[in-house]
Amino acid sequence: MADYIAFDNERALNYVAQLNEFFAPNAQLTCNEFGDGNLNLVFRIADENGNCVILKQALPYARCVGESWPLTLDRARIEAAVLEKHGAVCESFTAKVLHKNSELALTILEDLGHMAILRGELNQATTFPNLGSQIAHYLATTSFFYSDFYLKPAEKKALVCEFTNPELCAITEDLFFDDPYRTSDRNNYPTPLKSEVEKLQQNTELHIKVAKLKQLFLSSTQSLLHGDVHSGSIFVDAQSTKVIDPEFGFFGPIGFDLGSFIGNFLLNYCAQNARISEIPKRRQMQTYLLTTIQQVINEFTATWLSLANQHTRDLSLQAPRYAEYFVNQIIKDALGFAGTELVRRTIGLAHVSDVDGIEDETARLQVQQQTLILGEQLILHAETAHDKESAFNLIISLVQ
Amino acid sequence: MADYIAFDNERALNYVAQLNEFFAPNAQLTCNEFGDGNLNLVFRIADENGNCVILKQALPYARCVGESWPLTLDRARIEAAVLEKHGAVCESFTAKVLHKNSELALTILEDLGHMAILRGELNQATTFPNLGSQIAHYLATTSFFYSDFYLKPAEKKALVCEFTNPELCAITEDLFFDDPYRTSDRNNYPTPLKSEVEKLQQNTELHIKVAKLKQLFLSSTQSLLHGDVHSGSIFVDAQSTKVIDPEFGFFGPIGFDLGSFIGNFLLNYCAQNARISEIPKRRQMQTYLLTTIQQVINEFTATWLSLANQHTRDLSLQAPRYAEYFVNQIIKDALGFAGTELVRRTIGLAHVSDVDGIEDETARLQVQQQTLILGEQLILHAETAHDKESAFNLIISLVQ
Repeated sequence: MADYIAFDNERALNYVAQLNEFFAPNAQLTCNEFGDGNLNLVFRIADENGNCVILKQALPYARCVGESWPLTLDRARIEAAVLEKHGAVCESFTAKVLHKNSELALTILEDLGHMAILRGELNQATTFPNLGSQIAHYLATTSFFYSDFYLKPAEKKALVCEFTNPELCAITEDLFFDDPYRTSDRNNYPTPLKSEVEKLQQNTELHIKVAKLKQLFLSSTQSLLHGDVHSGSIFVDAQSTKVIDPEFGFFGPIGFDLGSFIGNFLLNYCAQNARISEIPKRRQMQTYLLTTIQQVINEFTATWLSLANQHTRDLSLQAPRYAEYFVNQIIKDALGFAGTELVRRTIGLAHVSDVDGIEDETARLQVQQQTLILGEQLILHAETAHDKESAFNLIISLVQ
Repeated sequence: MADYIAFDNERALNYVAQLNEFFAPNAQLTCNEFGDGNLNLVFRIADENGNCVILKQALPYARCVGESWPLTLDRARIEAAVLEKHGAVCESFTAKVLHKNSELALTILEDLGHMAILRGELNQATTFPNLGSQIAHYLATTSFFYSDFYLKPAEKKALVCEFTNPELCAITEDLFFDDPYRTSDRNNYPTPLKSEVEKLQQNTELHIKVAKLKQLFLSSTQSLLHGDVHSGSIFVDAQSTKVIDPEFGFFGPIGFDLGSFIGNFLLNYCAQNARISEIPKRRQMQTYLLTTIQQVINEFTATWLSLANQHTRDLSLQAPRYAEYFVNQIIKDALGFAGTELVRRTIGLAHVSDVDGIEDETARLQVQQQTLILGEQLILHAETAHDKESAFNLIISLVQ
């Protein structure tokens, strides 16, 4: 990475211009940096006709904390490579990579400025009828085609090494599975939540379940994950869905991605109790959120089984009914991981605007109590869900 | 590997002599090749005083089949590196590496000529009172210290890549989990076993269990395995035990090594029905074999829990009672893998002399019927074993 230099607007513009690939030779280009993420610079380069591309560049530290938290630039290589791998099997719902340069830790991506980030939309109670089906398709195809069902073993072993992502995985390992369950300077929750947090930190039954999930995260290389499927990593509009930002990508347990998505929908579900005061409108939004979770679980299952049925190349894994067992196991894992997402977003370092954006302190606290208990209960009971129906029934029983 | 050349006695002797490390400068050295393995040359270089070292060199093909089955020389690097890693945490029971050269795919090892290969000894009904305890210690320490309980995540991820072993793993993937359960040219069994084999190849319940085991083998990186702990990979004498030949080493499910050992003891148990005609003597040998299996399971468990209790560095995995859960899961996996070892050694490509060395054809066939059914039943029922006691009880109920 000897040639690395962090870009400003001018450098980003010049870099794109000299590629001579995306705009007419005499185009009048403008550039502005609009990244609000924690780890990267994001520039939009546009010509006078409104054609745009996005240049995303990794910074050698976590932007939210500052230069004191160094972070590998290799994540830019990983992110571009995961987008390409996922795009190769699920082009419709994966943001498109137009150019990459791992020395400069940058990727040029299609502009998705006509779409919006899902989290903000959900916070505004906007609904997306195609989202559930499209995310299910994305999660099922990307996880199937990079699993042992499809990849040849030697090919997969090589990819596991190519996508070894120790620094970004360490963030998840610490923030999802360690910090919330013990005293940590990085934890962040309001004082009135303290007694609830102490109970959680003393619940040894819960800690065993979290250990099982962490062990899976550490030692299961089921498929090439996105690694960070929260509602801030998804662009939406009325028709379509595009998944972005897989810099946490690695070979891990498939349930982690599915669980992250479910966890974020449940966070928003709880948040709506304080966001929408009008009961019928609130019920409508919450019904949408639950229906979408159900749809994602059901269509993920159906698509996975159909892919397994048509495309499984591994002889042993072709065993009749084995794919059903495998998918049920993924869903079980996913509920556990969803629980850890709820817990860590409530009392850990990184929160979500769904909850933290609730202005009324009392109302926000009530939501936080709900997300914490819901997360805890999901982790505790995930293993009782033996198939997609019982998984959804468990969720319903816990949110009501 | 541009400089690779397969050694003869003279080259092996000269190579060792020019190292000037192991013998007096004017020593009168002799060398003879005595390998009876399938994949390697093995030379013993000795001086006139009886001092010896072993030079083991990988051949670029599987010796048993011929040059038509090419096989990576990288396995020599893996083998030496696993011996060093295992030796670093379990010096007493791991063969010592004195020198290695990955270009020439060779390793110089301590001579163990005063010891004997376990398989031959068991076939002669010789017993080793320390073996169970020492193998349990080897399996527990090597698997604990390279697991997520002890290694830092980034350190482990780097080792997973260093020990990626696709070609040797492919042999196991094919021979353990695929071939025996379907028609394959590589399968090898006597015609009278055909109807039993057909039943096994139509048992879909069994195939689901085998798929679960194969999926674990393909995607669980729990620890740095030996990868081939059969009774031909263990040197013994009255006092001690030395494990050799980890060229199949990789990061895999811990139960695989434990299961391979148990499977080999059960193969010998069944073989003794035809090997020892005198009932009390046979019973004595079989009691020794079962007692050793029990001891290995019990001491493996006790040692693992004690190591976990003292040395677990991962915060989440320190959760009270999680290590018990984890070890019980290893034992469950081990019984399944033991079952696959029995099946593949009976009807797959590579057999064991315990069974194939039985001269009387009818008696041998009876043993093969027993090993096949025992293997099948172990695979089918392994998951019912919820701890070390029930695991051993399951074995007892199936062999009687």
